[in-house]
Amino acid sequence: MNFATLLPVSGEWKQDIKNWLSEDVPSFDIGGFVVGEDIRTGSLYCKQAGTIAGIPFAQQVYDECNLQVEWTYTEGFTVTGELLKSSGGKIVVAKVSGRVCDILLAERTSLNILARASGIATASSNIISLARESGYKGIIAGTRKTTPGLRRLEKYAMLVGGIDTHRYDLSSMVMLKDNHVEAAGSITDAVKKARSAAGFSIKIEVECCSEDQADEAISAGADIIMLDNFTHDGLKVAAASLKSKWSHKTVLLECSGGLRVDNISSYLCNDIDIYSTSSVHQGTEVVDFSLKIDPIN
Amino acid sequence: MNFATLLPVSGEWKQDIKNWLSEDVPSFDIGGFVVGEDIRTGSLYCKQAGTIAGIPFAQQVYDECNLQVEWTYTEGFTVTGELLKSSGGKIVVAKVSGRVCDILLAERTSLNILARASGIATASSNIISLARESGYKGIIAGTRKTTPGLRRLEKYAMLVGGIDTHRYDLSSMVMLKDNHVEAAGSITDAVKKARSAAGFSIKIEVECCSEDQADEAISAGADIIMLDNFTHDGLKVAAASLKSKWSHKTVLLECSGGLRVDNISSYLCNDIDIYSTSSVHQGTEVVDFSLKIDPIN
Amino acid sequence: MNFATLLPVSGEWKQDIKNWLSEDVPSFDIGGFVVGEDIRTGSLYCKQAGTIAGIPFAQQVYDECNLQVEWTYTEGFTVTGELLKSSGGKIVVAKVSGRVCDILLAERTSLNILARASGIATASSNIISLARESGYKGIIAGTRKTTPGLRRLEKYAMLVGGIDTHRYDLSSMVMLKDNHVEAAGSITDAVKKARSAAGFSIKIEVECCSEDQADEAISAGADIIMLDNFTHDGLKVAAASLKSKWSHKTVLLECSGGLRVDNISSYLCNDIDIYSTSSVHQGTEVVDFSLKIDPIN
Amino acid sequence: MNFATLLPVSGEWKQDIKNWLSEDVPSFDIGGFVVGEDIRTGSLYCKQAGTIAGIPFAQQVYDECNLQVEWTYTEGFTVTGELLKSSGGKIVVAKVSGRVCDILLAERTSLNILARASGIATASSNIISLARESGYKGIIAGTRKTTPGLRRLEKYAMLVGGIDTHRYDLSSMVMLKDNHVEAAGSITDAVKKARSAAGFSIKIEVECCSEDQADEAISAGADIIMLDNFTHDGLKVAAASLKSKWSHKTVLLECSGGLRVDNISSYLCNDIDIYSTSSVHQGTEVVDFSLKIDPIN
Amino acid sequence: MNFATLLPVSGEWKQDIKNWLSEDVPSFDIGGFVVGEDIRTGSLYCKQAGTIAGIPFAQQVYDECNLQVEWTYTEGFTVTGELLKSSGGKIVVAKVSGRVCDILLAERTSLNILARASGIATASSNIISLARESGYKGIIAGTRKTTPGLRRLEKYAMLVGGIDTHRYDLSSMVMLKDNHVEAAGSITDAVKKARSAAGFSIKIEVECCSEDQADEAISAGADIIMLDNFTHDGLKVAAASLKSKWSHKTVLLECSGGLRVDNISSYLCNDIDIYSTSSVHQGTEVVDFSLKIDPIN
Amino acid sequence: MNFATLLPVSGEWKQDIKNWLSEDVPSFDIGGFVVGEDIRTGSLYCKQAGTIAGIPFAQQVYDECNLQVEWTYTEGFTVTGELLKSSGGKIVVAKVSGRVCDILLAERTSLNILARASGIATASSNIISLARESGYKGIIAGTRKTTPGLRRLEKYAMLVGGIDTHRYDLSSMVMLKDNHVEAAGSITDAVKKARSAAGFSIKIEVECCSEDQADEAISAGADIIMLDNFTHDGLKVAAASLKSKWSHKTVLLECSGGLRVDNISSYLCNDIDIYSTSSVHQGTEVVDFSLKIDPIN
Repeated sequence: MNFATLLPVSGEWKQDIKNWLSEDVPSFDIGGFVVGEDIRTGSLYCKQAGTIAGIPFAQQVYDECNLQVEWTYTEGFTVTGELLKSSGGKIVVAKVSGRVCDILLAERTSLNILARASGIATASSNIISLARESGYKGIIAGTRKTTPGLRRLEKYAMLVGGIDTHRYDLSSMVMLKDNHVEAAGSITDAVKKARSAAGFSIKIEVECCSEDQADEAISAGADIIMLDNFTHDGLKVAAASLKSKWSHKTVLLECSGGLRVDNISSYLCNDIDIYSTSSVHQGTEVVDFSLKIDPIN
Repeated sequence: MNFATLLPVSGEWKQDIKNWLSEDVPSFDIGGFVVGEDIRTGSLYCKQAGTIAGIPFAQQVYDECNLQVEWTYTEGFTVTGELLKSSGGKIVVAKVSGRVCDILLAERTSLNILARASGIATASSNIISLARESGYKGIIAGTRKTTPGLRRLEKYAMLVGGIDTHRYDLSSMVMLKDNHVEAAGSITDAVKKARSAAGFSIKIEVECCSEDQADEAISAGADIIMLDNFTHDGLKVAAASLKSKWSHKTVLLECSGGLRVDNISSYLCNDIDIYSTSSVHQGTEVVDFSLKIDPIN
Repeated sequence: MNFATLLPVSGEWKQDIKNWLSEDVPSFDIGGFVVGEDIRTGSLYCKQAGTIAGIPFAQQVYDECNLQVEWTYTEGFTVTGELLKSSGGKIVVAKVSGRVCDILLAERTSLNILARASGIATASSNIISLARESGYKGIIAGTRKTTPGLRRLEKYAMLVGGIDTHRYDLSSMVMLKDNHVEAAGSITDAVKKARSAAGFSIKIEVECCSEDQADEAISAGADIIMLDNFTHDGLKVAAASLKSKWSHKTVLLECSGGLRVDNISSYLCNDIDIYSTSSVHQGTEVVDFSLKIDPIN
Repeated sequence: MNFATLLPVSGEWKQDIKNWLSEDVPSFDIGGFVVGEDIRTGSLYCKQAGTIAGIPFAQQVYDECNLQVEWTYTEGFTVTGELLKSSGGKIVVAKVSGRVCDILLAERTSLNILARASGIATASSNIISLARESGYKGIIAGTRKTTPGLRRLEKYAMLVGGIDTHRYDLSSMVMLKDNHVEAAGSITDAVKKARSAAGFSIKIEVECCSEDQADEAISAGADIIMLDNFTHDGLKVAAASLKSKWSHKTVLLECSGGLRVDNISSYLCNDIDIYSTSSVHQGTEVVDFSLKIDPIN
Repeated sequence: MNFATLLPVSGEWKQDIKNWLSEDVPSFDIGGFVVGEDIRTGSLYCKQAGTIAGIPFAQQVYDECNLQVEWTYTEGFTVTGELLKSSGGKIVVAKVSGRVCDILLAERTSLNILARASGIATASSNIISLARESGYKGIIAGTRKTTPGLRRLEKYAMLVGGIDTHRYDLSSMVMLKDNHVEAAGSITDAVKKARSAAGFSIKIEVECCSEDQADEAISAGADIIMLDNFTHDGLKVAAASLKSKWSHKTVLLECSGGLRVDNISSYLCNDIDIYSTSSVHQGTEVVDFSLKIDPIN
Repeated sequence: MNFATLLPVSGEWKQDIKNWLSEDVPSFDIGGFVVGEDIRTGSLYCKQAGTIAGIPFAQQVYDECNLQVEWTYTEGFTVTGELLKSSGGKIVVAKVSGRVCDILLAERTSLNILARASGIATASSNIISLARESGYKGIIAGTRKTTPGLRRLEKYAMLVGGIDTHRYDLSSMVMLKDNHVEAAGSITDAVKKARSAAGFSIKIEVECCSEDQADEAISAGADIIMLDNFTHDGLKVAAASLKSKWSHKTVLLECSGGLRVDNISSYLCNDIDIYSTSSVHQGTEVVDFSLKIDPIN
């Protein structure tokens, strides 16, 4: 998979990279002034087991800083504990060459990106592996609880890790909850009003607290049903009933929240199409990367 | 402490807030279209023990969305497990009023801010408390390993949590490492070159691997010495020696990395003025907040 | 319908308005200097039959210019030829009050907005009316052939005019054409690859030149089939066949291009769910608005 | 004529191009992900008779997308119906090469630009040709009724089509109307006040409803007189009289509005130096372009 | 004269003000944190003789900082040495009220603006006064040698000081020099090519080294002639000759450079319509302003 | 010294350059249209004695305009009157090659930059030379009274000229004055409050009107003391006393204002570590540069 092609060759994400670099030097780069313009090569190390993610973003940092990069590993590669151990605790992920002042400028921003993206990809990869091991065939998805300004990077890292991004933003899928239903008067009216603006190209999901509500939502044209406030067993019963009742329609069932690595085996049920969780991208551990200038031989 | 006054009344951080809101609605807000313009009030809940941080940023989200807010707690308040338990597992942190479409727009961005800032403040507060309990009188500081684009929020949360921000960016303090020394020819030359640009107003720190190097750096005018690559005991010996030798000069000693909540009691030594760690702001657990529209009575 | 709530209270569209105003005064506003700061009221007239659209955008122009506005008509109102005739050829759509220099600054930008948005809404309204008259029950949609930088305004005007926006941009729905299929190897592989990134929340449409291709696309999980390169009759036959064959799945059929006001009665077929056309928003006639300062009595 | 040199090598118009591309991909380009990075060539076709315009803007889209382009025709070339017919209904305007994901990204934005710019150039070229055929030797000019955010592109297309742009914005020429005169007290005072800010480098035009007003405006230093609210014949009489009376001064006479392709022969009079009309750029028909990836042979 | 109305109520200049404030606080405002939120009043003093300019820009700084301002003097007021002496060396120009942290934030940026704008207005006012005293009736104008990013403020200050701004930028008037003539082939061809893009609304000036060149330029349609490389006396002879020869056309003569306060009486000649000089805005002395918080009584 | 490395390879200062170029061409570059695309070379001349500064900024202008540049002199070179005289009054500082339309576009902006930066470097170089000649061994520093939006360029030019920049902005050093002390209650409390946010990495300066105040500030942890409101002799006495009393601490003494080229010999005292003055960068004379296209031989 060439995940980099998800990012348009011209796009706001490249301005984000500029902003992230600018954040680090509001006035002068005195360290750069001291270290000067010698051409050097640096080694980018990964020092922790995990799934590498964020390479196109880091690449753009290096491009912005006029640096040449050769990547040893590709996006999504899993750094295992064994590989690390056999490599003295760290592996060279890339070689970065250029003016030493530019390498040091790019260092912190690129590492901060890789650390966070790889952390999310690693957690995502872990949870989907566990889900598959426990026999679940459906979708594990993230949520919209991403870091402000970093949604693109974080949703991207979910994809690298092998899970679903869930809706990207408020514009790309509609989620109707109790407040929308209350304001519109009924589930049916809420779905119809949403459809009048969403049209055929945007999906509508409705949060339902009972099978009756789900029936109404599906009848009104909802594409996805979020089953909310069910008991653990009630959820499974309702899901099975809905799946059987509406088998002639493409409707998906979602359950949100509560899913964690430690409860996953007892949690998942194949009548639920989607389990969404922010546990894989919010407060997730980072993966440790570092960048060192190679000695001159 | 009125932390909000750290943020200028006009500044780029307000544009950040706009960008974070825009990130969530690239085209249309169909949910807002469905829910409409009724005036409602929502309750902002904290559902987890921790130190509340990020209120001025959340306030700006609400300001951008034309919402009125009344905060029940002030920045830096510690939500204890007892308080939560006695309040049914969640406390009302604020009441947010305005058009219901605007409340729902502001919801996710404000929660994402508060969750992250409070997570960092909580971890910061915990570590400084442990340090004080173990008898350490010096400084615990964060690092520059912050989330791209979120440095202001994260450094701010460190201050709310009671630790030192460390240097904000490459412009506000100079850190000279082996590459700078190598390029300049010697520690002395590197410090002098840095000083020629830094002038009197910006501090210079030098990473030193031996007491001799530290002596040279201090003589050359370094303000802070980062003691690097020492053994646990070697560090304490060197620190004591340097402190005694250079008592007629204001020079600070720093040790970076390795400090964690679980090793802190054996780690800290009062001859080291500053311990810096990214463990309190990188991959930190978030604090759980939510926002619910109050029912109409 | 309160279309204004489709636009978030804080969003890039407000910056667009600022940019559009700035486009008109790169240096000084000498006319404003001459006319001065007297408080005056202006009348915003509509002088042509059509559907009024763009009011929230014009309102934001006036807000930016510190003007007070009272709208006489609401978004989507149809100005008929009869109404115009009985009103002397023009109706007052709004009263705009404030400093006369600010009214004249806002004049051209607000009129340029209303003229274009209303032009699109009018054409959209006309075509959907004709479609309904000819017995068509499905969807008429616009396209992505919008004016650069004006997609929000133009898609919005389609909604006001009563038609579907079709996919807003490349991110909000996937359209797979021959190049995608060729690159992926087969329709099935292209759909599966797209689904791996699109996940459950984004729809996938596939352009198909035969019923066989359509069958493959639907089996692979496509949500919508664009029937391309069919004869007029072949299209109807294929649509009916597909509808009957895949009745147990929610799959939509689309036909693009060629639909115009003058051929609509013979064109539409109810087995096609969606007809898309750029004729209602590209090169569309504008509706004539003007703004005059009221005389002082 | 090398119209491209009207656009500065560094300028905001290049940021406009970036914004227009970003408008189309707020998050991910899943189509690009599917189609991948093979190097391909696409053919840019013109499929409708007209004057080609917008090439430098389209070129910048391709530059932004790292594409190589070879243009077959130059800006301002007239595509005749005969040429189209002899070429099978479409001509190749350019060959575009690069990563296929980048070609597809650039496709829609570049076509939307060319379609609109060529539409305006075509209408402009048509009207000036008709004017010349009818014996008119003066200036046909557009107006400031351009699409918000697109003034540069649209004024540029007028130049390619062979007509005058009229004043670009409120800063580049002053137009004094009844409100300005009323506020300043008299035509003379309004012109003098405007001149005090406009200086010698910016022209001043005054809207006049009578020959007396025109005399006063010219005496006060107006550079151009807009003759307004005259009858068809009254206009010609006044123009001739003013031209004769003020032959010792460089003063221009303008008439605005009402000019259309179908009334042009009876409309124009050589004593009027400038006829301005928005009919050539507002609600103008677009010219049809398309872009297809060439098959691999 | 209400110069403030030259600045549009919505425009990029307001973003400039934001940027100037942001330039001063890239991260935290620790001084603001110390000084707090008490409501105070500050006095804005002028401490040097000169012409006050820049008030609308300073006002916008205060608006951005939520401060209330009462101005004692209006834009363009001349602070005389006598007034200063009778007021103890400084006069109160405005009273600024609000949170003390906000007053201190606004202080430096507002003073930096007023100092520079007033410096230019003062120099401009001085030179035009001297010109009038020496009997010159024509125009004194600035140049395009303004400070990067500050053209609006500096051209504005010229107007406040009573001189002409000269052309604002490369777009608002065309200046043809030897390179343009060489590239086009002749003065006539250069003017015709320029006119084809400039149209009727933009003036064209041609730099000429001889009366013959000036004749050619005027015949070709130049609006202004820059007489360059003439001797002091040769200039006067040529100007008189051209004025007489071309009295039936509105053509202006300009002479650029060399004009200073100390050579002005022997320099000016009424046959030259415009003398332009950068001496009044480039390297101009500033006027001293300060802002002090009033004591609490 | 390679001053250019103070400027990060990716940073906001490059956007400033874009903005400065855009300021000069809001719509079309008609001069560029006339002069065309021939490849030519221009000579950049310095025509006045002084210290050359601003080369990296000018280089970036040329880069933005796709021009090739060869510099004959390096940043900080002192152009003496003798060199100018022996070179016919001007020296070639650089050769600039590319499309002639691009050279003319870059001309004014690059000259405006070099003129101002070199003016400040020249004044700075002059004052530090005079200080050294008069036996002063300490620091001469600029102030924060820089031109809005140009602080980076102006502080940079101070460094090229050989003086200290003083604090760059409100974030990079804290200055506590009477208002801060009054708000905090005492000098001690103000310093402690500032330190709680500034941490160890940012210096704190306190303005003191007496030796007692200075003692209190130093005891509280101030890094620098601004001695204010002392008599000429009182200042020297206090400085000597403080230096002797606090010799065991690294504390600096500053004196601000009043220093000029003409009073410097009697002004400076070696017990004062820093003299700051805005006289070297505010209202400073510019250095004259010009750019001429070389003739074709």
